[in-house]
Amino acid sequence: MTPADDSFRSSGAAPEAPAAIADRDPAAFPRQYARTRRFSLGVPRQFGVSPDGRRVLFVRTGGGSDPVGRLWVFEGGKERVLIDPVALGVTPTTGTTKAAEGRLPEAERVRRERAREYSTGVVAYAADAAARVVACALSGALWVVRTDGGAPVRVPAAGPVVDPRPSPDGRLVAYVTGGSLHVIALEDGKDRQLAAPEGPDVTYGLPEYVAAESMGRSRGYWWAPDSRHLLVARVDTSGVERRYISDPAHPERPPRAVAYPSAGTANAEVSLHILPVAASGPVPASGRAASRPVAVSRPVAVPRPVAASGERRVDVAWDRATYTYLVSAGWDGHGPLIGVQTRDQRSLHTLAVDPGTGATRTLHERTDPAWTEIVPGTPARTASGALVLPEDTPGTRHLNVGGTTVTPPGLQVREVVAVEGEQVWFTAGEEPTAVHVWRWAPADGLTRLSDGPGLFTAAAGGGTVVLSGLTPEGPVAEVRSSGPDRPVACVRGSGPDTADVTTATARTIASLGEDPVVTPRPEHLLLGRRELRAALYLPSWYEPGTGTLPVLLSPYGGPGVQLAVRARTWFACVAQWFAEEGFAVLVADGRGTPGRGPAWEKAVHGDQLTPALEDQTDALHAAAARFAYLDLSRVAIRGWSFGGFLAAAAVLHRPDVFHAAVAGAAPTDQRLYDTHWKERFLGHPRETPDHYTRSSLVGHGHLLRRPLLLVQGLADDNVAPAHTLRFSAELLAAGRPHSVLPLPGAGHAPADPAVNENLLRFERDFLRSALDKN
Amino acid sequence: MTPADDSFRSSGAAPEAPAAIADRDPAAFPRQYARTRRFSLGVPRQFGVSPDGRRVLFVRTGGGSDPVGRLWVFEGGKERVLIDPVALGVTPTTGTTKAAEGRLPEAERVRRERAREYSTGVVAYAADAAARVVACALSGALWVVRTDGGAPVRVPAAGPVVDPRPSPDGRLVAYVTGGSLHVIALEDGKDRQLAAPEGPDVTYGLPEYVAAESMGRSRGYWWAPDSRHLLVARVDTSGVERRYISDPAHPERPPRAVAYPSAGTANAEVSLHILPVAASGPVPASGRAASRPVAVSRPVAVPRPVAASGERRVDVAWDRATYTYLVSAGWDGHGPLIGVQTRDQRSLHTLAVDPGTGATRTLHERTDPAWTEIVPGTPARTASGALVLPEDTPGTRHLNVGGTTVTPPGLQVREVVAVEGEQVWFTAGEEPTAVHVWRWAPADGLTRLSDGPGLFTAAAGGGTVVLSGLTPEGPVAEVRSSGPDRPVACVRGSGPDTADVTTATARTIASLGEDPVVTPRPEHLLLGRRELRAALYLPSWYEPGTGTLPVLLSPYGGPGVQLAVRARTWFACVAQWFAEEGFAVLVADGRGTPGRGPAWEKAVHGDQLTPALEDQTDALHAAAARFAYLDLSRVAIRGWSFGGFLAAAAVLHRPDVFHAAVAGAAPTDQRLYDTHWKERFLGHPRETPDHYTRSSLVGHGHLLRRPLLLVQGLADDNVAPAHTLRFSAELLAAGRPHSVLPLPGAGHAPADPAVNENLLRFERDFLRSALDKN
Repeated sequence: MTPADDSFRSSGAAPEAPAAIADRDPAAFPRQYARTRRFSLGVPRQFGVSPDGRRVLFVRTGGGSDPVGRLWVFEGGKERVLIDPVALGVTPTTGTTKAAEGRLPEAERVRRERAREYSTGVVAYAADAAARVVACALSGALWVVRTDGGAPVRVPAAGPVVDPRPSPDGRLVAYVTGGSLHVIALEDGKDRQLAAPEGPDVTYGLPEYVAAESMGRSRGYWWAPDSRHLLVARVDTSGVERRYISDPAHPERPPRAVAYPSAGTANAEVSLHILPVAASGPVPASGRAASRPVAVSRPVAVPRPVAASGERRVDVAWDRATYTYLVSAGWDGHGPLIGVQTRDQRSLHTLAVDPGTGATRTLHERTDPAWTEIVPGTPARTASGALVLPEDTPGTRHLNVGGTTVTPPGLQVREVVAVEGEQVWFTAGEEPTAVHVWRWAPADGLTRLSDGPGLFTAAAGGGTVVLSGLTPEGPVAEVRSSGPDRPVACVRGSGPDTADVTTATARTIASLGEDPVVTPRPEHLLLGRRELRAALYLPSWYEPGTGTLPVLLSPYGGPGVQLAVRARTWFACVAQWFAEEGFAVLVADGRGTPGRGPAWEKAVHGDQLTPALEDQTDALHAAAARFAYLDLSRVAIRGWSFGGFLAAAAVLHRPDVFHAAVAGAAPTDQRLYDTHWKERFLGHPRETPDHYTRSSLVGHGHLLRRPLLLVQGLADDNVAPAHTLRFSAELLAAGRPHSVLPLPGAGHAPADPAVNENLLRFERDFLRSALDKN
Repeated sequence: MTPADDSFRSSGAAPEAPAAIADRDPAAFPRQYARTRRFSLGVPRQFGVSPDGRRVLFVRTGGGSDPVGRLWVFEGGKERVLIDPVALGVTPTTGTTKAAEGRLPEAERVRRERAREYSTGVVAYAADAAARVVACALSGALWVVRTDGGAPVRVPAAGPVVDPRPSPDGRLVAYVTGGSLHVIALEDGKDRQLAAPEGPDVTYGLPEYVAAESMGRSRGYWWAPDSRHLLVARVDTSGVERRYISDPAHPERPPRAVAYPSAGTANAEVSLHILPVAASGPVPASGRAASRPVAVSRPVAVPRPVAASGERRVDVAWDRATYTYLVSAGWDGHGPLIGVQTRDQRSLHTLAVDPGTGATRTLHERTDPAWTEIVPGTPARTASGALVLPEDTPGTRHLNVGGTTVTPPGLQVREVVAVEGEQVWFTAGEEPTAVHVWRWAPADGLTRLSDGPGLFTAAAGGGTVVLSGLTPEGPVAEVRSSGPDRPVACVRGSGPDTADVTTATARTIASLGEDPVVTPRPEHLLLGRRELRAALYLPSWYEPGTGTLPVLLSPYGGPGVQLAVRARTWFACVAQWFAEEGFAVLVADGRGTPGRGPAWEKAVHGDQLTPALEDQTDALHAAAARFAYLDLSRVAIRGWSFGGFLAAAAVLHRPDVFHAAVAGAAPTDQRLYDTHWKERFLGHPRETPDHYTRSSLVGHGHLLRRPLLLVQGLADDNVAPAHTLRFSAELLAAGRPHSVLPLPGAGHAPADPAVNENLLRFERDFLRSALDKN
């Protein structure tokens, strides 16, 4: 394998970098990494393209150190800010996001935690069908702006707002407040409560915990294309176990009770309902909202929807006892389309819903002896009604459109990003270390749109596509269309496109993100008999032949995440920083990680540990056989979440190989993790208890012989502190020295820059000291 | 100073020790220490003597490893069990106390936490005036037994019972349930609610947090001698800050909200009331209680009390706004007598209460420019009405009876243990390392009753005294009286005694406690210019001249606790164990510790750190000057609570002296500690913020340069986890490596034997490793 380090180096001098970091001193890295929120700030994201292809909406913070997101539109080759929370006086420019977060509705705070969203200001938006009316929530307030001009308007809502979404016709905005679903008419500000929770454990319009955390479904309601109905999820958590999340560093703060379904316990009851949005005779939710018309700059010139008189709520009927999980939902020109899954996740059915009666019809049945993997963006339908679905063979996850397999063996489909007419835009990779944007259309088959190493995704509409992603040089965002002033008429309708973005003009949406002060210099490797994808990071100052280096393995190694990719991820920067601090850092993606096909992904079914740990060990030994400067007598391993689990398991089970570990937010007892994520891999704990036992750290604590640091966010509602604390207690009871670093107030991904900055140094110091003692 | 090690050695072979520990292997110590609840199990305690001197009541568990307390009577030279919860089937014989604790009322659980009570079964009892009827609570049930025969009887109460106390005439038992005060008539089982809380934050008959934790007042109601009235404390915590105590290792358990008054914040409102106990027309609290007469073996042959018709509750009136704290209360032949203290604790007044009107009259005023120290057992009154009070000069805490100073300079009074007629029994010490039992009587002045090195206390009545305590050889309990069958008439009344226990026959109440497998071999020292009392523990295997030893300082060093005492305390055993593990362990009591007079005690006023740390440093250097084998390049320090604070402060401020520390349950921010304890030493944080700043660890974290392990019980409701967590967060933010060991479920004194056993080894391993690295 030929290393291609040169091509991965960034341009060196970073002209816009502040003077303090311009010297590219690795010592400045931890602070930069934390300040830039892991280099996410200033990078444009959440692209949306209007159906006429003329407007690209996106979110971007004010710069590489500014956490405040603004809503932007890119139109006519130019960027224009639509909502700037700082200019509106809603969000302070600088400082931590804590003050702003303090005003967030609880449901929004949870939504952001699930989305791992750590900026502030505009973090999400939704638009009408034409992308003319855009809504977003700022600190619980509803703001609406038109893309064709005018200032943003704060719309008085019935309460703090979560997930506001304009109707397709742009006349209404639906939102959730306090578990109720509301619609507000932009014309006159009239607010109607469409559905109110029947009890404190019921919500309308929000996803349940496992939907957001494990299924990738971050929402709970969907507009009908006619703007007259909503498909709404009702969630009842009254049967779900409660967990209390407290902040022991601030004992004066009342703990939160959250409904958390641990593996083997009851899930939330999720049902779907179709609610009519009667524009006539709305019931004002409050005097204030009813009496104050909203001055959205220009009325929307579309016909006013009229609800059928006496129209009632329709309950969507499917075998909910068997198909427990609502995996996906949507409403296209053919009606509502949903994906439902059995508790054992071995069946995932696609159902069409009759919006008049709520009756469902099975359009497709997927089954798998291990589990049916949820592919984002599926099921979907083309304009003609062809189903867009993933299709697994052992070696390949294909795309299937209308019953036809449209992708070749070896091309692993990741996500369907857009369906327009009969075209399907999706991401996929031939090689696990890269993800590209592809388009399939009946007329011209498959086309790859992105090029070169990197991880790409896309948004598409009206002959315009935004290719965004991360290359070895950093973030990119390119708008391709047949021309900036291309007539709208050319792309309306669902017929074959008249212009092809693959040959179109391209413009760039600027990233304002900072360049990291350490430049990742990975050597990409294929290691061992399984050709494990791996990257080796060496200190830039290291001369091979001048001595050996201690080795630091830094895996995730579990489902859903790859690290050994050809992109300047924050993770690659961290790996390089550890390298600059004196380690040879080896990052390998083993069995169970995505991008190498269903069989590879499912090799961990029933045992999440053995193959994962074996692959880390194999990668280490294969690398050491090739590079003599890797010192096998000084091997450390660090990781977070599944990676933390793997790191701790490594020193427990292979003390002959691994000499020290840092395990952050490690799920130590898989029974404590949630139903949907954990039963997928390990089954029901009542039926397959041995799967849980062998995939857990608890019960094996007595094996510890190596220095181990356990790091744990005490506000982590995902990998609860109980994971770390119970394992620590077991280690203590077994007489095993170890170290714990509790992080008060920190969630699963700590948000506090001071924590993130110092945690890196803390880990470095611990590992150095531990390897020195070895 | 001449070491007198020989006299401190226990007899060597322990005949009753199980075979497994008979070899006296130090490796067996941590388990033994934990299993025996720090050598407390099997040791008789809570002695009470009947007024005729014939019966001695006490509590003792079944043996050195048995946590179940039984109630015993010693009479006619013989021990007899009165209540055996195992025989009654109430408490399991062995195993942890958790199951039994699970059934405890919350108020009882709190009471035990404050009392540092970690046995189960009978842990406390109360008797009538004649010590014929005894009541206790077993897992929330009320049990009553007569000392003159018959089986214990379970008395149906209105709810789970806390702090039951028979009336002086033995006909009634008062108790608290759910914050209500009840009395139940033993004759017919009729139960009356005397006072019910007016809201969820009100209790009757219980002490508030700071009374139990800081004032030594562990109760909240007192019987009148006529058995017809009760003096009752009402506590209203509605204005007190709440703290939530959760168990993050068991997130499914609902957190507890406790009213915790942090320094500078509002205290509970405490008022006193005199409630009539009308025996006529009792209101049954429940049908069950009313309909089931109680079969207490024999009716008590005393006149039935009759309440005055229409008698009402009387409120005790004093300037509660100024004298915030109810420090002590009681009711003797002259009426109710209370001690009240100002918020700044510089005034402590003794008030007589008119039981008919509630009016109070000031009998005595104590003031002190620093604070008025609360001396247990005072204020009290003799039969003739002479006040029994402490009296401070800078050098000596005297005893004052009826306005006359009755103790000489240099004899430091500790506690008044009994007042009988005109006799006053108290504990005091001429030398800080020992506490003796003294008696003062007008006729014969002062007499010392206990002898030799040790810490002694006493219970007395009717010419009988129980001298109990801890000598260098272990626990002792000796009953002295003029004869086992001495006629009752001889000691009744309040005239001069007809027999003197100082010349009486003595019998022993057996201790069933285990002998420790390590035998403490302290060398007692006077160190430095302040002649600091100190003890040095060396490994038994160490031969001076064969090399140096690393030094481990193991202080408490704060108010209220001495460690360098001439007694085989559990602490001395732990010190010796650390010595056997290879440390020279130095234990020194510096300024601020008790037993060396008011000026010594108050040297820490306004600054709890500087003198305390200086004295530890002085002790170390003075010892090192004398013993060349103390290696000043390897000095560690460990401690718990104040000792943990001192240990952490030592490595922060004197890294030149101290090279590693373990700080357990360390109050890192004195502002987070409670009002009464902390304002005593540091004032109000609003007025003297600098006192708090210089006596805290927070704010100084950046100074850390040495290995530091922070240990913290996560259920500690006294030194809250916030202390450790906030300091750890500060250390992380300052980039200071450190280690944390959270103890899930553990309170301020961890109760779980598995934790206590392994914590010792964990500390040892940490300190060894840290000093090795140094």
